Amino acid sequence: MSRVKALEWVGDALRLLDQRVLPLQERYLECRTVDEVIHAIRAMVVRGAPAIGIAAAYGAVLSEMQHGPNPEAILQDLDRLAAARPTAVNLAWALALMRREVLKRSANDLPVVLLTAAQGIHREDLEGNYEMARLGAEVLATSTVRPFAVLTHCNTGSLATSGHGTALGVIRSAWQQGLISQVHADETRPWLQGSRLTAWELRQDGIPVSLNADAAAGWLMAQGKVKWVIVGADRITSNGDVANKIGTYGLAVLARHHKVKFMVVAPSSTIDLRTPSGSQIEIEHRNGSELTKVMGQLIAPENVGTCNPVFDVTPAALVDVLVTEKGVVWAPDARGISALMALSPERAQR
Amino acid sequence: MSRVKALEWVGDALRLLDQRVLPLQERYLECRTVDEVIHAIRAMVVRGAPAIGIAAAYGAVLSEMQHGPNPEAILQDLDRLAAARPTAVNLAWALALMRREVLKRSANDLPVVLLTAAQGIHREDLEGNYEMARLGAEVLATSTVRPFAVLTHCNTGSLATSGHGTALGVIRSAWQQGLISQVHADETRPWLQGSRLTAWELRQDGIPVSLNADAAAGWLMAQGKVKWVIVGADRITSNGDVANKIGTYGLAVLARHHKVKFMVVAPSSTIDLRTPSGSQIEIEHRNGSELTKVMGQLIAPENVGTCNPVFDVTPAALVDVLVTEKGVVWAPDARGISALMALSPERAQR
Repeated sequence: MSRVKALEWVGDALRLLDQRVLPLQERYLECRTVDEVIHAIRAMVVRGAPAIGIAAAYGAVLSEMQHGPNPEAILQDLDRLAAARPTAVNLAWALALMRREVLKRSANDLPVVLLTAAQGIHREDLEGNYEMARLGAEVLATSTVRPFAVLTHCNTGSLATSGHGTALGVIRSAWQQGLISQVHADETRPWLQGSRLTAWELRQDGIPVSLNADAAAGWLMAQGKVKWVIVGADRITSNGDVANKIGTYGLAVLARHHKVKFMVVAPSSTIDLRTPSGSQIEIEHRNGSELTKVMGQLIAPENVGTCNPVFDVTPAALVDVLVTEKGVVWAPDARGISALMALSPERAQR
Repeated sequence: MSRVKALEWVGDALRLLDQRVLPLQERYLECRTVDEVIHAIRAMVVRGAPAIGIAAAYGAVLSEMQHGPNPEAILQDLDRLAAARPTAVNLAWALALMRREVLKRSANDLPVVLLTAAQGIHREDLEGNYEMARLGAEVLATSTVRPFAVLTHCNTGSLATSGHGTALGVIRSAWQQGLISQVHADETRPWLQGSRLTAWELRQDGIPVSLNADAAAGWLMAQGKVKWVIVGADRITSNGDVANKIGTYGLAVLARHHKVKFMVVAPSSTIDLRTPSGSQIEIEHRNGSELTKVMGQLIAPENVGTCNPVFDVTPAALVDVLVTEKGVVWAPDARGISALMALSPERAQR
């Protein structure tokens, strides 16, 4: 496992690695209140769909510590946590789980129950990451010519999860197995998760990484330099459509055009069976200052108009394989997703 | 015409608007030697294929002013100017024209002859821009539903040319004619020509511009927000392949996928009949620090591996229409390009 910890429960607080200042500074923040957790999620101190879910679960623990055994106050805090960011479904999933605990347990048990539940979410995310990494590397191992280069987008590693990662977990494990020669990392504007986080993580692990402008991905594929595109997901609808970092959709179109394989890696908690297709997903637009400023430095005319959607939706038809901790779905569609979700936690492969 | 002047001959020097510090500063540099011009081209004080060609032509004038009537020394300087940047063919084209003047005229005439030739290149570029703008707007006017939004990449405006621009010249003129409602501008990493230059130029002219991350272009097209993609070119080979700013190729693939029309606008001096196809074009790779630093600020781990091609090649098959000052070529191919280039300067339309 990577030594990097995006989040850690330290007994009375949630300790977060401040991802806004990486890789220049390794700074930690301790959240002791729900409001601090909400702010951390909104401001992207912590980001990455799985990590946001875990942070919110600990937010419920902090809520109990603030309010005492007051289920109503805690439930209100859970609603506020859920509204912190709209696209990732792991947030809603983790909070629904915490909500069930609040509703079914006696108020006096809540301190222990909520902490146990949050730590369970945290631990299961890590176990799930290792299982996804194993399954994803198995898929990559089916390639006859190897090692090969892969391309990834955004950050889906230890920093986005409890550790190891989703897409980056697969890449880590596949690299350890000698399947991967080189990781091309999109810098991932506007937030630069690729340059700031993915490049940093991969270098810490000694995995060869080459950073490129997002717009260079098509050229890399045309040059035959990429065998697989491997990305995470923030929400997967019941028909297999994938909401993920802006640019994922374009990569999927380019991958298909170049016959490059396209893999999505995400825990099954990312799958939102209540949303039938991608067109129903609310796409978060963030402040235009993410485009006009870099590290506080203005790089565009002040007050210029901007369009800053930070997620997009990739239709299931452009996804070659979906890897979850429950199993692998080739050419995902409503039937494949439904079969996957019907599996017991002791996964099976389809 | 836009009030912005990327370059101006001021009697004994070439005055350049320093595009490295826009839009934060409007700073001018005066080049009085060939070496200063070479440095300005290499360091991207002046950029944009047509502007580079004009700057190099004035570089020949400065060479004569340095060396006096010494054709041999001037020809050596022309070779050094030609090597300043590899991809744009306008540079080689302008220098070939200056070379012919040096070879055919008597040494004593050179002061007048070279300045006249450079000013001719400069003036003809501007006339060509207006003609391209007229022809391109005519093409856009064939759309039945209007006004509509267009997307552009990099900067192809006054700052990249003698004034008005190539792709941005078409956009300017079409906007004046009420054809365009909105310009989506890719920020164009790594050098941010979109945010720093295109957004700045369009705002100066009061044309509605919305800046987006390069990776958001696919999503914008999927949302039906873009009717035409309009870009410039640094080199067009005899079969119609187009070398242009990195990311152009990906946009062309995405445009075709979404049935969005793709227009390339470039002076005929961009057409390189001696290069049969895009695979023979040398693609310039620039320093990785363009990816790891923004305005001097580090945004990635130091010494991380990078891949920084700054141009890519779009196959002719993905181009719907090529607009030059000589005329318009629909679905460009070797035959269409050859017919265009055979036209007399009194252009005709095909």
